[in-house]
Amino acid sequence: MAAKGGLSLNTATVRDAWTLEQCIDGCQRHGIPGIAPWRDKLQEMGVARAAKAIREAGLVVSGLCRGGMFPAADEAGRRAAIEDNRCAIDEAQAIGAQCLVLVCGGLPPGSKDLPGARNMVQDGLAAILPEARAAGVLLALEPLHPMTCADRSVLATLGQALDLCDALGEGTAVAADVYHVWWDPQVAAQMQRAGSRLAAFHVCDWLVPTTDTVFDRGMPGDGVIDIPALRGMAEAAGYRGLLEVEILSRTWWARDPDEVVRICKERHATAC
Amino acid sequence: MAAKGGLSLNTATVRDAWTLEQCIDGCQRHGIPGIAPWRDKLQEMGVARAAKAIREAGLVVSGLCRGGMFPAADEAGRRAAIEDNRCAIDEAQAIGAQCLVLVCGGLPPGSKDLPGARNMVQDGLAAILPEARAAGVLLALEPLHPMTCADRSVLATLGQALDLCDALGEGTAVAADVYHVWWDPQVAAQMQRAGSRLAAFHVCDWLVPTTDTVFDRGMPGDGVIDIPALRGMAEAAGYRGLLEVEILSRTWWARDPDEVVRICKERHATAC
Repeated sequence: MAAKGGLSLNTATVRDAWTLEQCIDGCQRHGIPGIAPWRDKLQEMGVARAAKAIREAGLVVSGLCRGGMFPAADEAGRRAAIEDNRCAIDEAQAIGAQCLVLVCGGLPPGSKDLPGARNMVQDGLAAILPEARAAGVLLALEPLHPMTCADRSVLATLGQALDLCDALGEGTAVAADVYHVWWDPQVAAQMQRAGSRLAAFHVCDWLVPTTDTVFDRGMPGDGVIDIPALRGMAEAAGYRGLLEVEILSRTWWARDPDEVVRICKERHATAC
Repeated sequence: MAAKGGLSLNTATVRDAWTLEQCIDGCQRHGIPGIAPWRDKLQEMGVARAAKAIREAGLVVSGLCRGGMFPAADEAGRRAAIEDNRCAIDEAQAIGAQCLVLVCGGLPPGSKDLPGARNMVQDGLAAILPEARAAGVLLALEPLHPMTCADRSVLATLGQALDLCDALGEGTAVAADVYHVWWDPQVAAQMQRAGSRLAAFHVCDWLVPTTDTVFDRGMPGDGVIDIPALRGMAEAAGYRGLLEVEILSRTWWARDPDEVVRICKERHATAC
């Protein structure tokens, strides 16, 4: 990994304002060394064209967001998810992403079978792992905040993600987003356990009050997360990658994207 | 404990409609064997008068809600919290509550020091434990959903609560609310670990989508929690107490309280 502790712009941060092309340009203008595209923006630009532009801009791709979403109500749905993840692996390889970030998915519609959904996640990961290994694409399991367990991620803690890595082996890793892990009494121990399997480190902040369970994340420094402490845990465990700023927020999406990126850069220096 | 698996009405479920006196009457009319008052309603009715009415109604008090809220920005605030918890212990003893439920508190205003807040919780518990033991009042630590970590409960998991019980010893126990623990990959193991220290079992449901992090809990059966599975874990671990229905919900508060209680009773039979 390159540029320890430098900033990477996750394109979701300026989701409503900028295309991927504009994000690449924005990173250059603001002197930001890394980028993490979402797949919709990547596909919109075209994978080959984006890969070339990112390479020419000299940007590190801290991750591709996102694969995952394995659980489904029937076999056809689960197969479709696996196929989609295979496309994501190809895309991650094409743009030289340091990892493919996986948001593993929630309960299938109408289901209350949480252990069953967790098994579907493990089975889906096992199914795509050979392609990921062959492509040299690291699968980064991102545990999401437990408030997303029903509809976005039955993978809820770093410990659970590392248990999956232990079961699946080489080619799997974890992505730690401070928003998702800050509350966890086990976070220090699990960061240490992750060690070289910590493939990505995402930053934003937890606002008080939080008015939406998905789209009310804060700018680093505006909330209650002790980001430097968590970064310290990650770096003590050996993390040498970028700090990727990913802010899903209706508030920030409504603001001028250059202003948002300028403030991200400032807070990267002062609040991370 | 009495009446394994019977229903207990937490007064918060009909918070906006009924006084404690009306709740006691409602339990009798609906044939509900247990009650769990909140302290504001208890104090409004008068502790001695409430204790007499509950006794005469033959109701089991599955818990008094709630003590806790230990972290504070300064020493005076922390002392005030401890004094308030001493009052809560007296009240719990007066009404014969099977436990005093503790919601331990979030970060002090302006603080990002999560380990520090957790230490304040442990110190507060240690300070009130002698009085609780002398009064014969069991302190039931209730881990709250991690989405409440900043402002309500730095105690986020059953495992963390049991670690505190281990450290504090006799007179401490845990309260498991399905809403707070259902997502936890460790829930089965920690229920088993709790064993006889499982002092209360609360039910409601997780709605999809959840539109408010505090006041959008669901009626059992309306959400995605596999309540019978969790109840099975609790009873396998030795739990023999009531199932306390606690629904903090603007939706249900707006409905006729007799209708709410009737539906609670029905769902207790069909969805728990």
